[in-house]
This record gives sequence, structure tokens and C-alpha cells, in this order.
Amino acid sequence: MKAISIDMGGSHVKLAVVENASILATDEISVDYGAGLRSVLPVFKTIIDKMLSHLGMRPEDCVGLAMGFCAMVDRTTGKVVSTNGKFDDATGIDLPAWCQTEFGIPFGLENDARMALLGEWYAGAAKGVDDVVMITLGTGIGGAAMAGGKLFRTKQVQGGTVGGHIPVLFTGRQCTCGAVGCMEAEAAGWSLPLVAKEWPGIEHSRLSTVERVDFRSVFEFAREGDAIAAAIRDRCLHVWAVGTVGLIHMYGPERVIIGGGVMRSADVIIPYIQEYVRKFSWTPSGTVLIVPASLGNDAGLLGAIPLLDGLH
Amino acid sequence: MKAISIDMGGSHVKLAVVENASILATDEISVDYGAGLRSVLPVFKTIIDKMLSHLGMRPEDCVGLAMGFCAMVDRTTGKVVSTNGKFDDATGIDLPAWCQTEFGIPFGLENDARMALLGEWYAGAAKGVDDVVMITLGTGIGGAAMAGGKLFRTKQVQGGTVGGHIPVLFTGRQCTCGAVGCMEAEAAGWSLPLVAKEWPGIEHSRLSTVERVDFRSVFEFAREGDAIAAAIRDRCLHVWAVGTVGLIHMYGPERVIIGGGVMRSADVIIPYIQEYVRKFSWTPSGTVLIVPASLGNDAGLLGAIPLLDGLH
Repeated sequence: MKAISIDMGGSHVKLAVVENASILATDEISVDYGAGLRSVLPVFKTIIDKMLSHLGMRPEDCVGLAMGFCAMVDRTTGKVVSTNGKFDDATGIDLPAWCQTEFGIPFGLENDARMALLGEWYAGAAKGVDDVVMITLGTGIGGAAMAGGKLFRTKQVQGGTVGGHIPVLFTGRQCTCGAVGCMEAEAAGWSLPLVAKEWPGIEHSRLSTVERVDFRSVFEFAREGDAIAAAIRDRCLHVWAVGTVGLIHMYGPERVIIGGGVMRSADVIIPYIQEYVRKFSWTPSGTVLIVPASLGNDAGLLGAIPLLDGLH
Repeated sequence: MKAISIDMGGSHVKLAVVENASILATDEISVDYGAGLRSVLPVFKTIIDKMLSHLGMRPEDCVGLAMGFCAMVDRTTGKVVSTNGKFDDATGIDLPAWCQTEFGIPFGLENDARMALLGEWYAGAAKGVDDVVMITLGTGIGGAAMAGGKLFRTKQVQGGTVGGHIPVLFTGRQCTCGAVGCMEAEAAGWSLPLVAKEWPGIEHSRLSTVERVDFRSVFEFAREGDAIAAAIRDRCLHVWAVGTVGLIHMYGPERVIIGGGVMRSADVIIPYIQEYVRKFSWTPSGTVLIVPASLGNDAGLLGAIPLLDGLH
């Protein structure tokens, strides 16, 4: 079974042609998400046509086009329902119609965090595990849960997709979602520069010399002995660990998968969260295993087949 | 359909004979939960026999005995798996065997928060609502969720039953569950005296004159103009509201039901949480309705029939 797959992250878009759990061709573009989705759709079309042509395939060789989107979406209508500062024009775009016009094949839309979990469940770190939570640490923090091998959903579009918006510190920072002190507001790519800016003594850290503080610089400088970077890194680890315990308490998973770009520092992140979860979560069935996503940036792309097969 | 129903709260036990959504007979006893469950089982037997006899019924007229228990339980085996300082001997008691010996009928065991939700869904404030979360504010804070008309469960016993242990303040108070800053650790019956004790200026409040600070005294003194009591009440309201937003983000319900003894002050609690949820939760499908449990202390008792009917 083949499909076209588009993974719309907060700042990068990955496109692929997949066959079951394999990626036949892939490409990635940086996008200015503030500029909106409409202006990049023609770019998607060009890239997809090129990939298909390179593979000697036509669009109709694919069962459909699956898109993972960093927003709340309505699976049943293929509409983006609510965005959070990224591709805000998407709610006004008829994506199924776009897909029909450009490729003539069915369109499947899902939240990007759910797509990543579907991918990991189908072909990665959650294979064979039916009660599982996935957290994707990135510009925002995505979250998705599966119980009994089915994605957790409710009729409300947000049902089970806003794991990053679990509270961790109600005296904390205003979140873009409207709430206060969400895990994402305290330790995600977008909030990190704000956290760093206010950190006491930040002027003594190399972080004050970078244009935009990101997880890469925080983890790198921390490794190199920058005490402020290390303190900020440790607070991020703490916030993620607290959020993970909360998600474990809420969803009762057997395993938690952690993905996202910052997982290039998985050697620091996974042991910290695993130890915190062992110490601080209430799980009489046994300590929940914390594992890195194994498909890296391909997880969302590989959610395409389980999404389009109609079972999810 | 008739059943025997026992609702084991943190400090009170309610017993009843129910017929569908009606309570035919009921009784309530105070128990010292520290003294354990084994010593009160004979009391249960006496009370149940008396109720049945009064109704002219025999145990075998009932489809079973349903028990809601303030702990993590294994529905499939009828065993209490993990307690949290209440009836700690229960994990070593074979309750199905006790029920068989004393009454000769099937035994159904469920977490008390799930039982209360089942009751409200079957006969109360959640009737006809299939995506719903219930929070029970009491000695602890119970939580349960239903999605698509089914109780949220996973294979792990804690799956979806520990809503009170959603984090709200990771710099906060040690919780009895092992985590830090859970909603329950910040604003439940057991933690309230600890919060009050450390409150700046508590010696100027009437709360310093009561033997044990409870929600009744906090809400009553606050109404009467005690500024410290009002401040403590407001912090409890804030904590519950934050936790409610978190539960909404996690479970995507259409409605949140709030129950528990403190709901005698529902006139203060419901509007506060409703307004906070309206302002601070991310729910593009529309503001989630916050409603008081309508069955009061009978909710758990009325979960008996849906529990025993085999569909949940």
C-alpha cells in the first residue's frame, strides 16, 4: 500500500511517498509559518510531482494523501479547526478539495502529534504496545494517546491531542493556548527564549550571544560547562518529567514515547525522565517505560498508512 | 434489575439496595479508615441483611453486589490493587469470596470515582453525555473519564482513574501518591489542614480555632468575612479550576461533572470554575459545560447497575 504523506511541523514541512512502513522518497522544506499555508501549497504540489515522477509513479498509485498538521483538526471533514499561531490561514482552506484537484486521490488529515504516534505504533517504538502516550518536544509540545490500540478521541476536536497543555505550574507563564503554566509554556521551543531572557544571570551565559535561544544551544552549551545553560536545561528536563508523570496518571499507558528535534540529546533526556517517572508516578502495575521515538522525523510520515487504512 | 451497592469513601461508607436508577434502601456509617477494611466487613453484612429484610428481599433477588472503592482496583479480578492511606489492608482481602460466602451473588469492584461517573451517566448530570469527565472533591480528589459512552480504561490499573493527580504546581507540595504538586496535594480534604497551617497570618483566622480545618469551615468562615479563610478558599478554587482545564485538555469532554461533599458550596464553586474554563481552556468546539453532580452522595451507589450489567 502506497501513500503520499505530508508532515506539517511548526517550522519545517516534510513530504514523502511511503509504501507501508518504508519511505520511498522524501523531501523537507523550511517554511515561514507566519506566512500561512496557502502560499506553500503550490510548493508541495511541485515537490510531490517530482518525487512521484522520480519513482515512476502516478498519484493514483497511492491510496491517498495523509497530512499531519500542528493544530486541532476535524478528522471526519478534513478541516483544520483551530490553529495556535502556526499557519493560521489553514482554517479557511479546503484541503480535501485541494488534494482532489491536484492529485485526484482521497485526503486524510490528522493532528501531527497523533500522526507521529500512529507512525511509531505502526512501525517504530510503540510497535505492539496498545496503551501508549507520545510526547513530541518541538516548537510546541505535541501529545497523543492510544488506549487498546485505538487513538484516544472524543467528539470534541481537542480530545486527547493537547498533551503539551497539561498544567505543570499554575503560577507560571501565559501559554499561547490561553491557559497558564502549561508544560508547553514552560519548556517548548517557542517559550524557551522567553524563559532564557528572564533567567537570572543570563548575561553571563553564552546563550546571551545567540540570536535565538533554542534547545540545541541550551543542550550544547550545558554540555560544554555553561552553568546557566545547564540550569535552564535542567528546568526543561524537570518540566518535561512532571508533564510526563501527569500524562501517565491521566492515560495509564504501558509506555511513553518521546520524540522531537531535541531528542538528539536523548542520552540526557530519557534517563532523567525515566528516573523521575520511577520515583514520582503512581503506577502499581509497574514503572512505565520511557523510550525515544525510533523513527525520528519520519514518525509522522509513517502514520500515513494506518491513518488512511480506515481503522483509525 | 436490583443490586446491593457499597460506596467506600475516604471516611464514610454508604450502603444501599438499588433498583435501576432508584435507591430502595440506604444507610451510611462513619469508619476509621486507618483501622482497615477487614474489621468493618461484618458491619456491612449486618446492615445489608437488615436492609434486605426490611424490603422483604433475599440477596439472590439482586444481580450482584457492586462496590466502589477509593483506591486502584482491578475490575477483572475484583481485587484492590493499590491503596493510598485508606483501608490499606484491602489489598489482602478476597472480596469476591467474601461476597460469595455472605450473600451468594456476583461481586463487582470499581474505583469509587469511576462508580460515581457511572452513576451520574446512568441517572444524573451526565445522562445522555458520552464524552464526560467527573471530578469528586473530597478527602482526596477522584477523577474518571468517559469517551464515547465507555469508561476510559487501559490495561494498567491506574488508567484514567487518577484525575486528582494531574500536576498543577510542580514546585508545590508532596502528594501521598508519590508525585509533587498534584491537584489533590494542593486542594483536597487531607491536604487542606497542611495548607492552612502554613498560611501567613493563619493565627488571625477563625480557622486557627477549629480542631481540623475542613472545606466546610473554610467556605463557611469565608462567607462570614474571614479574610484568611476567603484567601484559602480562593486558592482551592483556583487549583480546582486549573486542574479542570488540564482534564479538559487531556480528555476532551463535552461536560465536566463536579461532585463531592464540598459541593454544598456549588453556588461558589461552579461559577468560578465555569468562568475560569471559559477564559483559560483551549476548546474550539465550544466552552465545556461545568455542572454539579446531581445525585449528590448517591452517585456511586447508582453506578451499581451499569457496572454489573457487564457493559462497563
